[in-house]
Amino acid sequence: MVKAELEAVIQFDRERPDVYGNAHPKNLLRAIQEDGDHLGKITNRHIYSADQFDQESLLQLFRLAAKYEANPDRFSTSLQGQILISAFYEPSTRTRLSFESAWHRLGGDIMSITDRSTTGLAKGESLADVGEMFNNYGDCVVLRDTNAGSVRDMMNALRIPIINAGNGTDEHPTQALADLYTILKWRPALIEGDEKANLCIIGLPSKMRTVRSLLKLIALFPECFSQVTIVNDKSREEMFDPGQLEQLLEAGVNIHTSGNLNEVLPDADVVYINAIAWEGNSFSQYGNQYHIDSTSPLKEDAIILHPLARGAELCCSLDNTPHNWYFAQARGAVFLRQALLTCLVRRVERVLDIV
Amino acid sequence: MVKAELEAVIQFDRERPDVYGNAHPKNLLRAIQEDGDHLGKITNRHIYSADQFDQESLLQLFRLAAKYEANPDRFSTSLQGQILISAFYEPSTRTRLSFESAWHRLGGDIMSITDRSTTGLAKGESLADVGEMFNNYGDCVVLRDTNAGSVRDMMNALRIPIINAGNGTDEHPTQALADLYTILKWRPALIEGDEKANLCIIGLPSKMRTVRSLLKLIALFPECFSQVTIVNDKSREEMFDPGQLEQLLEAGVNIHTSGNLNEVLPDADVVYINAIAWEGNSFSQYGNQYHIDSTSPLKEDAIILHPLARGAELCCSLDNTPHNWYFAQARGAVFLRQALLTCLVRRVERVLDIV
Amino acid sequence: MVKAELEAVIQFDRERPDVYGNAHPKNLLRAIQEDGDHLGKITNRHIYSADQFDQESLLQLFRLAAKYEANPDRFSTSLQGQILISAFYEPSTRTRLSFESAWHRLGGDIMSITDRSTTGLAKGESLADVGEMFNNYGDCVVLRDTNAGSVRDMMNALRIPIINAGNGTDEHPTQALADLYTILKWRPALIEGDEKANLCIIGLPSKMRTVRSLLKLIALFPECFSQVTIVNDKSREEMFDPGQLEQLLEAGVNIHTSGNLNEVLPDADVVYINAIAWEGNSFSQYGNQYHIDSTSPLKEDAIILHPLARGAELCCSLDNTPHNWYFAQARGAVFLRQALLTCLVRRVERVLDIV
Repeated sequence: MVKAELEAVIQFDRERPDVYGNAHPKNLLRAIQEDGDHLGKITNRHIYSADQFDQESLLQLFRLAAKYEANPDRFSTSLQGQILISAFYEPSTRTRLSFESAWHRLGGDIMSITDRSTTGLAKGESLADVGEMFNNYGDCVVLRDTNAGSVRDMMNALRIPIINAGNGTDEHPTQALADLYTILKWRPALIEGDEKANLCIIGLPSKMRTVRSLLKLIALFPECFSQVTIVNDKSREEMFDPGQLEQLLEAGVNIHTSGNLNEVLPDADVVYINAIAWEGNSFSQYGNQYHIDSTSPLKEDAIILHPLARGAELCCSLDNTPHNWYFAQARGAVFLRQALLTCLVRRVERVLDIV
Repeated sequence: MVKAELEAVIQFDRERPDVYGNAHPKNLLRAIQEDGDHLGKITNRHIYSADQFDQESLLQLFRLAAKYEANPDRFSTSLQGQILISAFYEPSTRTRLSFESAWHRLGGDIMSITDRSTTGLAKGESLADVGEMFNNYGDCVVLRDTNAGSVRDMMNALRIPIINAGNGTDEHPTQALADLYTILKWRPALIEGDEKANLCIIGLPSKMRTVRSLLKLIALFPECFSQVTIVNDKSREEMFDPGQLEQLLEAGVNIHTSGNLNEVLPDADVVYINAIAWEGNSFSQYGNQYHIDSTSPLKEDAIILHPLARGAELCCSLDNTPHNWYFAQARGAVFLRQALLTCLVRRVERVLDIV
Repeated sequence: MVKAELEAVIQFDRERPDVYGNAHPKNLLRAIQEDGDHLGKITNRHIYSADQFDQESLLQLFRLAAKYEANPDRFSTSLQGQILISAFYEPSTRTRLSFESAWHRLGGDIMSITDRSTTGLAKGESLADVGEMFNNYGDCVVLRDTNAGSVRDMMNALRIPIINAGNGTDEHPTQALADLYTILKWRPALIEGDEKANLCIIGLPSKMRTVRSLLKLIALFPECFSQVTIVNDKSREEMFDPGQLEQLLEAGVNIHTSGNLNEVLPDADVVYINAIAWEGNSFSQYGNQYHIDSTSPLKEDAIILHPLARGAELCCSLDNTPHNWYFAQARGAVFLRQALLTCLVRRVERVLDIV
């Protein structure tokens, strides 16, 4: 490589592009008044299912996340002396590093397990015994496993909090929390009831844990959404697991389904897309015919969310457009996890203004 | 899941059950007078074999462990600035996390190697060269390998201390130290010579490194035990490796063997059970016909120890009984390792009252 | 093992042998006057290729490394609050632990990825997307991959600095920096132009990334070397990739080649030897007929360098001789990496005397 070409290649810009949509923690902070009492419901429970939350505690959780995001360097000792057990029996880099970064930024220590075959489970040890072991070694557990029952089995023996980071095809609650946090950061007016968002979800609720958890949170905030349209190529019976659709309808969500993405997009304010479902030890892709790119009929102000990793379904041509909120979503997820972890290990008093 | 059921599932209790036997660090502290001079023999040696210890230095080590266990949050900077190289060439979660938790709690940093295939050994590098590399990168090494000679080979080149965390079927000295620490914590009177314990070991001395190391420590404290009975289904020739039985007899241990567990249990004060022996890259189970459960003819005050992981040999029905000291054993092992690590990196002056 | 034998085996000496050549940071510090301005070229660029450097910034980098090596405990908070993403998609223990030790010693936190198969790359995720993810999770990346294009692909998306820790058979710039640092530490007079060294390289420039990067640095400091002789059993066409030899000749390096090691050794002041080339997922050995041992016709003052891991090509009989500078080389590499990392995350002002 010619020296001039090399010189160009190795230079880099440390500033985030404005277009990556991140300038809103202040607006969310203003929209929610701090009330730490409501965090009590988050402080003393395992984080297992998106069903376990209520509006008030989530708003306080999001406010805490926004506080962290607005002041990323201020609270660097919140988790000092605390040990996180980062147990990814199902491999992951993105979610694992998101949790570990969140924990490190707040001054905590981490022990990682990244290979199920190195654990006593290979010796036939029960998850309850693994949980009892974790009680003695750490202060908080994050667990992901392809086996949907693992988190529950370990929970029974735990006297320290555990976060379900993905249990088979069942749930991924913190991803959904990060998704909703991003939506409310983008439009705090949704909380105040001044606006409603038209949400389009391209994905398969019956197979994708990210979508499953997100729909449950939407059922907690039905008044924020004028309409929710699920886009995929399945019939209604295949699209939803028993109870999924019913939960949304009972909550009063104006839920639609469609097989035609380009008919739905022109009305969508928020477009959520995911193509991958992890099933067992491998993944499947659903809805390969659906993809969004810079030629898609998006509303001018529409934002796009994707839990990432992405493939062909979300084209790079959108990365440098104002529609790109998927990078801000990943960035905000770290702060959302910081807020959650701080609650779980009972260090909130180090961050709140009013204790 | 119904909301009420979910709510019940996600709640957890942070308090340890009293019945898990942990309330005794104070008694052990009182039973042993602090005399840091005796720690000198532990400070400047690799930890390789249970044979290398003597009573006086072990009592001071146990006293230091008890001090840590009685004040788990006080000494959070003892190992500040120190780096542990946690090298588990043979996979482990339990022992690895026990060491890493011990090190983190005291403020140290850790570099983990959990996959032998990622090391230079795959390139044919000698363990001596790996040791010389470690001299430059860390302050202390913990090593486990299926190859019994690895620890010794690395030791020759090391100028920082190494702990043998399990070398093939040979030894596991820190596990034995944790076991004896637990027994003395349970009955400090054993040290003072006021009492003796009847110890039953269900396991195979010739195959299990945990049992091999434990018997060596018992040979150092013969006066604490009225009788030691090894229970398994082998003949004496198969049960012991050359020298094992002789060492116990020479030390004056009243050693028996038996194939009938239920005949031995009614007299046992301490019951130690293990069924797994790691041999090469896999494990074997020995003595499947032996198991203890809540119907076993245990003495009312008998305590049970198990190095864990456990299988069918130790029934869960015993977990919520006062016999359960195997959880306390795992808990105490962290503090025992803290004491050992503090000595090895010469930070004892930060913890002792009299320097 | 008899007690006396055990006692001998477990004792160890914490002092480094003088003969391991390490007593020279002071001389190098004196030979280079501190001028932090020249570090600006290192502070704001990815570290990709040995071609990107110039003499002045390298001398300041080496001075900073020497400062760290002369005061290993003084700057223990330089990287406090910073997170390193240690991504070794191609396995390594030596280089990974060298970087991680450097970062830990300066107070930073680390997230390690040691298994490519656990990453989103297995899901088909682009390296650019992985880079964008890293932007949100850490402050600096170190990456090694068998695929020569990976570092470049990730660099394009990064807003935090990345260090190429080995990209296929292409380059390994920090190893070469460590090598040159060691040579200048050994003979600071080379910088002042008072002396020249005769350098012998036993290796294959076309296949070994360590040699490739080293030759590029030699081309920056041609006045330090009276002669550079490449020793291997290949023809000139096979020995060099296009451009390698030309770069050295254009820089004015007196470059020779030879197939006869024992003819070259008697004139060599510095002997660099390497036998392993990583190609794809396995390694090949080149030049098995070349090896150095205590009978080799070395100059009395000659020093030997080897990037390690070593095999039969560098005999242990040389370890305890004054020729052994390969252990000092590994030791110094940690400090060289400390200097580099400090620059990249813009913490130099915490270490320089004049800011």
